[in-house]
Amino acid sequence: MEQKKGFHVAVVGATGAVGQQIIQTLENRDFPISELTLLSSARSAGSKVTFNGQEYTVQEANPESFKDVDIALFSAGGSVSQELAPHAVEHGAIVVDNTSAFRMDPNVPLVVPEVNEDDLHSHNGIIANPNCSTIQMVVALKPVKEKYGLKKVIVSTYQAVSGSGAAAVQELNEQTKAIINNEEYEPAILPVKSDKKHYQIAFNAIPQIDKFQDNGYTFEEMKMINETKKIMHMPELQVAATCVRLPVATGHSESLYFEVETDSVNANEIKSLLENAPGVVLQDDPDNQIYPMPADCVGKNDVFVGRIRKDLDEDKGFHMWVVSDNLLKGAAWNSVQIAESLIKLGIVK
Amino acid sequence: MEQKKGFHVAVVGATGAVGQQIIQTLENRDFPISELTLLSSARSAGSKVTFNGQEYTVQEANPESFKDVDIALFSAGGSVSQELAPHAVEHGAIVVDNTSAFRMDPNVPLVVPEVNEDDLHSHNGIIANPNCSTIQMVVALKPVKEKYGLKKVIVSTYQAVSGSGAAAVQELNEQTKAIINNEEYEPAILPVKSDKKHYQIAFNAIPQIDKFQDNGYTFEEMKMINETKKIMHMPELQVAATCVRLPVATGHSESLYFEVETDSVNANEIKSLLENAPGVVLQDDPDNQIYPMPADCVGKNDVFVGRIRKDLDEDKGFHMWVVSDNLLKGAAWNSVQIAESLIKLGIVK
Repeated sequence: MEQKKGFHVAVVGATGAVGQQIIQTLENRDFPISELTLLSSARSAGSKVTFNGQEYTVQEANPESFKDVDIALFSAGGSVSQELAPHAVEHGAIVVDNTSAFRMDPNVPLVVPEVNEDDLHSHNGIIANPNCSTIQMVVALKPVKEKYGLKKVIVSTYQAVSGSGAAAVQELNEQTKAIINNEEYEPAILPVKSDKKHYQIAFNAIPQIDKFQDNGYTFEEMKMINETKKIMHMPELQVAATCVRLPVATGHSESLYFEVETDSVNANEIKSLLENAPGVVLQDDPDNQIYPMPADCVGKNDVFVGRIRKDLDEDKGFHMWVVSDNLLKGAAWNSVQIAESLIKLGIVK
Repeated sequence: MEQKKGFHVAVVGATGAVGQQIIQTLENRDFPISELTLLSSARSAGSKVTFNGQEYTVQEANPESFKDVDIALFSAGGSVSQELAPHAVEHGAIVVDNTSAFRMDPNVPLVVPEVNEDDLHSHNGIIANPNCSTIQMVVALKPVKEKYGLKKVIVSTYQAVSGSGAAAVQELNEQTKAIINNEEYEPAILPVKSDKKHYQIAFNAIPQIDKFQDNGYTFEEMKMINETKKIMHMPELQVAATCVRLPVATGHSESLYFEVETDSVNANEIKSLLENAPGVVLQDDPDNQIYPMPADCVGKNDVFVGRIRKDLDEDKGFHMWVVSDNLLKGAAWNSVQIAESLIKLGIVK
């Protein structure tokens, strides 16, 4: 059967921070689109969005919005996905959902194409896009697992405010300006808009991303732990996470400690492995001060790794610094990449 | 023998960021001073400094500056300490050195009073003040070691620019202002003034503090590793560090993973222990979003700990978030505290 020339793609949450990046990424990738439907909440409906030089009017999303849609890319919040994704599936669309609504559902594949693309075959209409901080970590760890085995991961994150949405970026910018001008600025968004208290993010570091669970970990930390095990197919993997918000607009960084299963691996072997790994760019030359930084990763689809070095005590232990654009590989690009994989594998026809 | 009413104290580096904090701390603590000598490089000599309402003129430091000095507090850089500290000792002063010059010298005690005050007795004229990032970590870990044993520590730091001096703080402020105003600003100080390349710190995170060693670790990371073993008297302790500079003016944060020697300890036991530990303030109430943050620690002498929780896989593993003012407990206050201990223990008479 001949492959279709193009697909009917819907973007739900088209006016949001990630939605905008999805539309831009579809354009940059020259994604085979026959029809594009841009959807949002009632509040944002009517907005104009330009795609490939053509102006589109964003429509209010409702259960009937998905007629004839082949691929629906959702990024409008968990409750919207909960409500509308099943309707999209009923209409025959495959949903790629960027929220946490279905990620841990055993019937929903949670996919990072470099890691577990084959899981797409077992979809039941919905495919979940993992949390931003999880994605960049598993892209960097997958090649290590394949070659040397993987036993344990301890990660401390340095996360950008755009992970909390466009309003958080605005808060960072306005608050920074206020502090520099010695003016007052009442925090209202970060660390978590719906939580009780809000704290200054400018010139600060907040060790809370998402709300706290009863076990003392935040939901963000538990996402990193649980999603990593699911994506890597390693329920036995030991994963621990501490997630921290920084005064950085875009670009998550992660300080990783990991232990492999193989004896006597050296840091150069890990570097060579990652230099040739899909989706990974090695930036690791301490003599010339080459290492990844969030300010350099913005607008790029890759996961940047550096500072790779062996632990000084544990033969199987290594340290690594991992940086990526949380709106692209952490969200929009991974979603579009899943859609490209769906076409490549013949799952969407 | 009756204790002296006051001591002749010299501050070397009196016009620097830490020197200024030392002078302020001596005043705040009502330190028993009979005579105060303020010293600096030739360039800063002649500056006026106010102490207890009295104006002092800073003099150029030279080998003869230490006549009759009881306690000399050095914070003017490693080369100044190398050159002048031996002269101060010859004149009978006890030197408390805030640089890295003598820290790993086996004849020089490296002291954090809450941890190893007794090591002061074995001094040979010079006592070293540890690196800022090390101090706050060992204050938090010492009570854990005493009660439950300590096997392993993995730390990722979130360090403020004032650790690089007043010029770095100025760079952060001016660069932030420039970026907000869409103006150019050429980095010239951070991450390391004397290194080849300089990078933007505003809205960024730089995984380099101090220069790199051949093993891929920075000197800052190796300081944390080696100093921790020395201060804790635990050459066998497994310590690993990743040190990262943030766009924060003052206040270092650290994400710690540590393993104790004792089975079945729970997080509440660690919290109770630290709640009553000297120099430590427990800020750990996730339900009310209480945890330490750098913006809250500035100007305080304490080490703030929170986010204490048990690892989900390792029975002996725990996570903790540790914050302190790097200019106070990390430098000036620890130095003055050592001087107070020297008096209390009758070592300076």
